[in-house]
Amino acid sequence: CPCPLPSGDTALSRLVRRLLSARRSLDLCLFSFSSPQLARAVQLLHRRGVRVRLVTDAQYMGLHGSQIGRLRHAGIQVRHDQHSGYMHHKFAIVDRRMLITGSLNWTTQAIQSNRENVLVVEDADYVKAFQDEFERIWEEYNPANYSFF
Amino acid sequence: CPCPLPSGDTALSRLVRRLLSARRSLDLCLFSFSSPQLARAVQLLHRRGVRVRLVTDAQYMGLHGSQIGRLRHAGIQVRHDQHSGYMHHKFAIVDRRMLITGSLNWTTQAIQSNRENVLVVEDADYVKAFQDEFERIWEEYNPANYSFF
Repeated sequence: CPCPLPSGDTALSRLVRRLLSARRSLDLCLFSFSSPQLARAVQLLHRRGVRVRLVTDAQYMGLHGSQIGRLRHAGIQVRHDQHSGYMHHKFAIVDRRMLITGSLNWTTQAIQSNRENVLVVEDADYVKAFQDEFERIWEEYNPANYSFF
Repeated sequence: CPCPLPSGDTALSRLVRRLLSARRSLDLCLFSFSSPQLARAVQLLHRRGVRVRLVTDAQYMGLHGSQIGRLRHAGIQVRHDQHSGYMHHKFAIVDRRMLITGSLNWTTQAIQSNRENVLVVEDADYVKAFQDEFERIWEEYNPANYSFF
């Protein structure tokens, strides 16, 4: 991908810097993921040896511009739901200690055109609630549990 | 509307109880609002004399099932964006002291079918950041500033 990581003090560059602070793990729970810049940051962490896990929505992962296929090809573990309802979360947890969540889908449209919010929370109780939700979803969407009909 | 307010200890009933704790003001910044139960709670607060202000997305406010028209008819102040990008926030501020935000759009689909999160935050710094964003948007979307072309 030719897209450079964002620099300067935009909201996107601040988000990328938070992500790149990961040293051990990055847990991603993302409804929609089509931003090349954010995908590049995630791939960089994966190459550095950070354990990246990604949960996403089955209906949105195949849409044009989705970065999910590229991340899978890079060797990143991805799981998705099997439901008609949306897996609508949009959060990241860095090193099990920093929660990044809000209204922002990880799409170029959202980053460039929408009015959005992103919260960064290090309070252990909030982080734990989201980490627990992540682990629940990660197990629930384990491919070993898929039903084919 | 025949829909009763939700009872019991569902996520929706807990959300409604937080909203109904408002005594002075309720500031709503909602991408999409089609839940009859949540609209009923908002109308109840309006009738009690709580100052309700609502900002929403121009493209979504006219969709089938939207509660925006009904709330306007009830006398609640509503403002919307004028952009092609989405006003994608989904937060509420109760009495300028409690922030309710997350991935949840105020729609029946989201409440019943999706995997969603809602954070309740009373930390003054977080509340202030969202209150400031609300006031910015409220002024920016003042109908006096509309351009007709």
